Amino acid sequence: MRNPPALEQLVEALRCLPGVGPKSALRMAYYLLQRDRKGAGLLAQSLDQALQVVSHCGLCNNFSEQEVCPLCTSPARDHSLLCIVEMPSDLMMLEQTQSYNGMYFVLMGRLSPLDGIGPRDIHLDKLLKRAQDGEVEEVILATNYTVEGEATAHYVSELLRARGLKVSRIARGLPMGGEIEHVDSGTLAQAMLERRNVR
Amino acid sequence: MRNPPALEQLVEALRCLPGVGPKSALRMAYYLLQRDRKGAGLLAQSLDQALQVVSHCGLCNNFSEQEVCPLCTSPARDHSLLCIVEMPSDLMMLEQTQSYNGMYFVLMGRLSPLDGIGPRDIHLDKLLKRAQDGEVEEVILATNYTVEGEATAHYVSELLRARGLKVSRIARGLPMGGEIEHVDSGTLAQAMLERRNVR
Repeated sequence: MRNPPALEQLVEALRCLPGVGPKSALRMAYYLLQRDRKGAGLLAQSLDQALQVVSHCGLCNNFSEQEVCPLCTSPARDHSLLCIVEMPSDLMMLEQTQSYNGMYFVLMGRLSPLDGIGPRDIHLDKLLKRAQDGEVEEVILATNYTVEGEATAHYVSELLRARGLKVSRIARGLPMGGEIEHVDSGTLAQAMLERRNVR
Repeated sequence: MRNPPALEQLVEALRCLPGVGPKSALRMAYYLLQRDRKGAGLLAQSLDQALQVVSHCGLCNNFSEQEVCPLCTSPARDHSLLCIVEMPSDLMMLEQTQSYNGMYFVLMGRLSPLDGIGPRDIHLDKLLKRAQDGEVEEVILATNYTVEGEATAHYVSELLRARGLKVSRIARGLPMGGEIEHVDSGTLAQAMLERRNVR
């Protein structure tokens, strides 16, 4: 006794989603066919549509429907600053802070040899070209403070400094509302090392 | 700064999947567009295909590409037994045990008022018609031993016994390899209450 072929095929196809194993895929397929056929139809349509129109911005490498995205063409922004982030969601978080008015470059990932993601997969050639356009004066590394994010920042900074660019890294320290008693010792050690003069 | 509209639309559509919230949907969309465009295309195709060809068996209510599924038309099976299960995966588990040769009825869910799933959503009209076809002699309730599964079994058994059908429930007790020291007290109490004569 097996499920109908088209259902098995759907279960298999759902497994391409990250974090979805055989059991969740089966549950999803049952759910879609049983309770949300309209949603499933819409999902198929949205997938096709997104595959057709969404590509990467030629400058910042973020997802975009245009060749160059609105942010990269905006004259209101400071073209001498280039902030490097891992993912579009990082870019959006930074934009929400309204603390930065420069340009971005989205790596669309991080160096992670264990997952088979090497320098070529995070578009470093495109980044080098972008950073050497003559306008960029400072590159700000805003990759995560994870092992992979740190490794990526180190690798990228070596590349960029070898080409004479000024490279900086976003600060590390206690978060807002952070209590010394409860913060991890790595963060506390860094906060101590990178202490600033009180003015 | 927002994602391109087609990407936002895809994120929204992915949220129709069970267990997928805004954050996972965004992660899935990024992943598909960035690393697995082929998988995304295949997923869209499989969804369309499944929506087109997969429907429910007219007799057992399981998913099927035919009007009546192969199991229901099989002459090798005992048509006097009707086993009621919640989901197709339960049916498949029972089939794997090779301990049952009767027919099935798949509720495609369970009574769950909190989730808005009432008697109408688990196809009880279809079940009543099926159980009273003249051939069925015993109905076996094989819903889960969860709160919802128990409530469903209770409700269904009332309906069926009122129509003069013999109704039974799969046994409860210690699982294979179960140790009295480690089993929960509810199971142990039931195992004691439902003890059997040793022959």
